[in-house]
Amino acid sequence: MTRKIAVIGAGLIGRAWALVFARAGCEVRLWDLDPNVRARALDELAEACRLSGEDASALAQVTICADMATAVDGVEWVQENGPEKLEIKRQIYADLDRMTAAHTILASSSSALLASHFAEGLPGRARIIVAHPVNPPHVIPVIELCPGPDTAPEVMERAEVLMRAVAQVPVRLSREIDGFVLNRLQAVLLAESLRLIEQGIVTPRGLDDTITHGLGRRWALLGPMATINLNAPGGVKDYLDRYGPTMARLSDSSARGEAFTERAAEIIAADLPGPAQVPELSRRRDARLAELGRFLRDNNE
Amino acid sequence: MTRKIAVIGAGLIGRAWALVFARAGCEVRLWDLDPNVRARALDELAEACRLSGEDASALAQVTICADMATAVDGVEWVQENGPEKLEIKRQIYADLDRMTAAHTILASSSSALLASHFAEGLPGRARIIVAHPVNPPHVIPVIELCPGPDTAPEVMERAEVLMRAVAQVPVRLSREIDGFVLNRLQAVLLAESLRLIEQGIVTPRGLDDTITHGLGRRWALLGPMATINLNAPGGVKDYLDRYGPTMARLSDSSARGEAFTERAAEIIAADLPGPAQVPELSRRRDARLAELGRFLRDNNE
Repeated sequence: MTRKIAVIGAGLIGRAWALVFARAGCEVRLWDLDPNVRARALDELAEACRLSGEDASALAQVTICADMATAVDGVEWVQENGPEKLEIKRQIYADLDRMTAAHTILASSSSALLASHFAEGLPGRARIIVAHPVNPPHVIPVIELCPGPDTAPEVMERAEVLMRAVAQVPVRLSREIDGFVLNRLQAVLLAESLRLIEQGIVTPRGLDDTITHGLGRRWALLGPMATINLNAPGGVKDYLDRYGPTMARLSDSSARGEAFTERAAEIIAADLPGPAQVPELSRRRDARLAELGRFLRDNNE
Repeated sequence: MTRKIAVIGAGLIGRAWALVFARAGCEVRLWDLDPNVRARALDELAEACRLSGEDASALAQVTICADMATAVDGVEWVQENGPEKLEIKRQIYADLDRMTAAHTILASSSSALLASHFAEGLPGRARIIVAHPVNPPHVIPVIELCPGPDTAPEVMERAEVLMRAVAQVPVRLSREIDGFVLNRLQAVLLAESLRLIEQGIVTPRGLDDTITHGLGRRWALLGPMATINLNAPGGVKDYLDRYGPTMARLSDSSARGEAFTERAAEIIAADLPGPAQVPELSRRRDARLAELGRFLRDNNE
């Protein structure tokens, strides 16, 4: 039986989700509050397919709906991509909870708000989760699945199964934490990077080269745990015995929030392509990420 | 004219350096204190070529030398890969300084010691630098070039030119800092990862998936600065205006050295392949890194 999915919000993230579900054979109902966004959505989806070198025939699976109630009627999963404003999210979830059947999972793409913020007190809070993607999810597969305090364990199980069925890579968090995992890791790396740049130790492009031609290349194949597991003859415990004290010393002197300065922003902006190039560079990024994704899939372990 | 290079130390890193220089057409003199290591070096180099899918004919450029003085005679660059022990390094650099001509650059692969630690007081300290590779440098191209306080600027210029000539990617640091850039970035990410794992928020494999299927995939193509430059319509300054406060908050609550606990090591070791699999997994890592390197070279901007 064809899976029925609703995607709420048809901006960049919502459209990428629609593509993820459609290319996996789901029937996708896409809705946005803004009629202009709805009107353009299918053309923009076709353009996203062209850029990422994907078969646009999957878009026949996508129906643009004129209202939210129609979009969510009878679906097994709602992927919500509304604004990151608590009052708006609360209203959306109150509506979704009322409009959908008890077996429907309500998943938010939120990166800043936690389910406990917007699901609190709702009758259906056991079926509300965060399914946090990376921009854009049709070319970057990881999805952080984060329960709220009242989310039912079987909802998390079903969420994991669905994400795998649509060829994404779910990562389950056991409980809520500010920033989830991915943005916490990104934040510490950015803080240290900004300070090294502001101190003039390295240029912004030099810092980027350190990652793209160094750590990032390794991390595209092996995560940081698998990496250190291979960097000492006796595996990860041997690594942490040998290098843990050094790594601890380096992290003790690492930068924190104070590194996010205006001056660091100025230095970085002066070394990188300007805002006028952002749209074209973003399209190239997505095309290259899609290529890399195919390479990694074909060269998987 | 063929460039003449000496590589001192024929362990994993020294051999990888020998391969980097040889495949770029340099004449390489390889020496190790241990005669058994010297005797095996060419066979091990041939095996490294086989694993990384490279043409082993470059190995004809490599000569194994029976003593250090012969290896370094008349070379333009010495790449030293001795043990990370200060007294040993001091002795090696005193010897190298005496044995080599004034135009020869003396470069250390050291990750833990700085040039100021082992070049201090030597007549040739202006030509001594750190050229820090990532394990293993024949499949990961970044090289951190770090001057000591007395290193001449033209030595850094020549070092950068040579690294580009042998197809590595040099990153220049303006001055010494503990851990250089790469290991400082790795350390902050490891600290936060270990704490998230120890707290049970995410499993070690889940954490690795977050990177390999998320941030690492992006970072193999775009560094963290280029990434944030494309994650807001107005570029990096717009990004830092919008998300800087969130990233600052997350890094303010990030883990530091206290995260490197025995318990975290136990949890990680229990979730990953054991030490017996390290050699085979390392070989597969190198083969896959070589493949990925070719893919990235062919799909470069």
